[in-house]
Amino acid sequence: MIRVGIYGYGNIGKGIECGIRQNSDMTLAAVFTRRDPSQVKTIFGDTPVYSAANVVNYKDEIDVMIMCGGSATDLPVQTPALAEHFNVIDSFDTHARIAEHFENVDKTAKIGGKTAIISVGWDPGLFSLNRLYAEAILPEGNNYTFWGKGISQGHSDAIRRIDGVLDARQYTVPVPEAVESVRNGENPELTTRMKHTRECYVVAAEDADKARIENEIKTMPNYFADYDTSVTFVTQQELDEKHGGLPHQGIVLRSGVTGANKENKHVIEYSLKLDSNPEFTSSALLAYARAAYKLNKAGDIGCKTVLDIPPAMLSQKSGIELAQYL
Amino acid sequence: MIRVGIYGYGNIGKGIECGIRQNSDMTLAAVFTRRDPSQVKTIFGDTPVYSAANVVNYKDEIDVMIMCGGSATDLPVQTPALAEHFNVIDSFDTHARIAEHFENVDKTAKIGGKTAIISVGWDPGLFSLNRLYAEAILPEGNNYTFWGKGISQGHSDAIRRIDGVLDARQYTVPVPEAVESVRNGENPELTTRMKHTRECYVVAAEDADKARIENEIKTMPNYFADYDTSVTFVTQQELDEKHGGLPHQGIVLRSGVTGANKENKHVIEYSLKLDSNPEFTSSALLAYARAAYKLNKAGDIGCKTVLDIPPAMLSQKSGIELAQYL
Repeated sequence: MIRVGIYGYGNIGKGIECGIRQNSDMTLAAVFTRRDPSQVKTIFGDTPVYSAANVVNYKDEIDVMIMCGGSATDLPVQTPALAEHFNVIDSFDTHARIAEHFENVDKTAKIGGKTAIISVGWDPGLFSLNRLYAEAILPEGNNYTFWGKGISQGHSDAIRRIDGVLDARQYTVPVPEAVESVRNGENPELTTRMKHTRECYVVAAEDADKARIENEIKTMPNYFADYDTSVTFVTQQELDEKHGGLPHQGIVLRSGVTGANKENKHVIEYSLKLDSNPEFTSSALLAYARAAYKLNKAGDIGCKTVLDIPPAMLSQKSGIELAQYL
Repeated sequence: MIRVGIYGYGNIGKGIECGIRQNSDMTLAAVFTRRDPSQVKTIFGDTPVYSAANVVNYKDEIDVMIMCGGSATDLPVQTPALAEHFNVIDSFDTHARIAEHFENVDKTAKIGGKTAIISVGWDPGLFSLNRLYAEAILPEGNNYTFWGKGISQGHSDAIRRIDGVLDARQYTVPVPEAVESVRNGENPELTTRMKHTRECYVVAAEDADKARIENEIKTMPNYFADYDTSVTFVTQQELDEKHGGLPHQGIVLRSGVTGANKENKHVIEYSLKLDSNPEFTSSALLAYARAAYKLNKAGDIGCKTVLDIPPAMLSQKSGIELAQYL
């Protein structure tokens, strides 16, 4: 049995707590939290909760620690710190800082003789894999990634920071015509605006100037200014009832050519349709936790990404059993 | 530069000859043929063609040999024979015999200190990878594979063997309702008949009994009896004009659940839309040829499948460059 630890107990941590029960070779060792452990209510009553301050005391009782903090401020500090004592997995998703994070984690993991796999999930993660596989197979062509329809946490937060906004949810939505054009092998050049639209559902304070709020959203640099954005004002009740879930979707496409005169077109498409974005990410983290465990047993230490991991390492099956996938 | 050899010069061999020119780190060493080399007309005039009988003489001039024979009788003999002298890649696709083929190739590759990767292509190959990845991430769920719309060479051949048939092409076609049901996460139980239909285009001899031919096709065990099959008689000219290409398509889907009460559904879908089935397979073989070359350099010998190969090994890029996919 692989003894799994959960470090940080938010949506991802809860997803791990549930997901471990779907993997018969894994057992949940404990949840570690920065809060008062006695105040943390877990999904299952028998989940042990300990203080994050004492985590190193448990180093011999945990085979893989799954880091469930946020990418902005938690993981850049926590993953390197824990990689010296535990095999670790994280879902660090600030694309521009992955190389730097890799270096920091690699250093401590090698000091401790541990194995780390960073940036696991679907993007970065499964989408990264598909971009690499597809480009290696069709070297002449273009990759396209579409996200949504789904909630963007970062964009929802940005709206909530506007004066007079009580709550908000923002959906990222692919433009159907853009997706169809890529699927048809037309290799379009797409600007930011041509790829996605943004749908905002906003709860405003009673006395707030809605026209000003709408304008502040639509002109916000980086977040909304480069997109066609719609703003719909709703009540808190409507928001909770109709926009309370965390579904997401996404598509990675590659369109490429082969043949003596590049006359043959090919399209590779990988897509996800998820009822729960955090639970799916948790499920991916667990599969890679198994790989980290196996790699460490084999003496392969240091930091890795999904691009380095042989697919068979993710599976509970081994040897001849794997032939069922071929 | 990776020096690539082509062993057998049919549709796959021709696809490799074209595909090498799309990979700037590869060069074509030679084509080996069982025919008289002077009678083989290659796509590009500067492609050297040698007799297969002398292949071992070229062992120091070729880094990876791509085996382009058929799975029925060629590859089971040729791949083990050449794996002792060359790093080899093949597209062996008789699913039920892959384990046996693996053993044979592994034995000779280890004797010669060579690296072999077998059963590369899209199914087995990329579809196998996706079945494994998806099941590792969503352990509770079902895998579904649909093939088509596309030409099945085996089924076309079976029709051609019927008395009075001059030529034929058979398309395998997924049943749209079955695909939709899986996409909607309904986890249907699907019989053979519910998943695919078969469309046959047949050129009959002038005096042939078309009713008998149609009946013989529709009742043929294994090939057609378990499917809803349509038979359309056409002229040779129509067949050549409208059904002369080798396009294919396919979809691998996994539908699974997560959550405390398994309340959240997820669907992972991987699909291919190919103008030329053999050229796409060739492109996959070339990416794995690169991996075999790298593995052998690293001292990792013996037989492998796509499930064993770290994705990064397929890429021309390395180290920090790979971060662009993350």
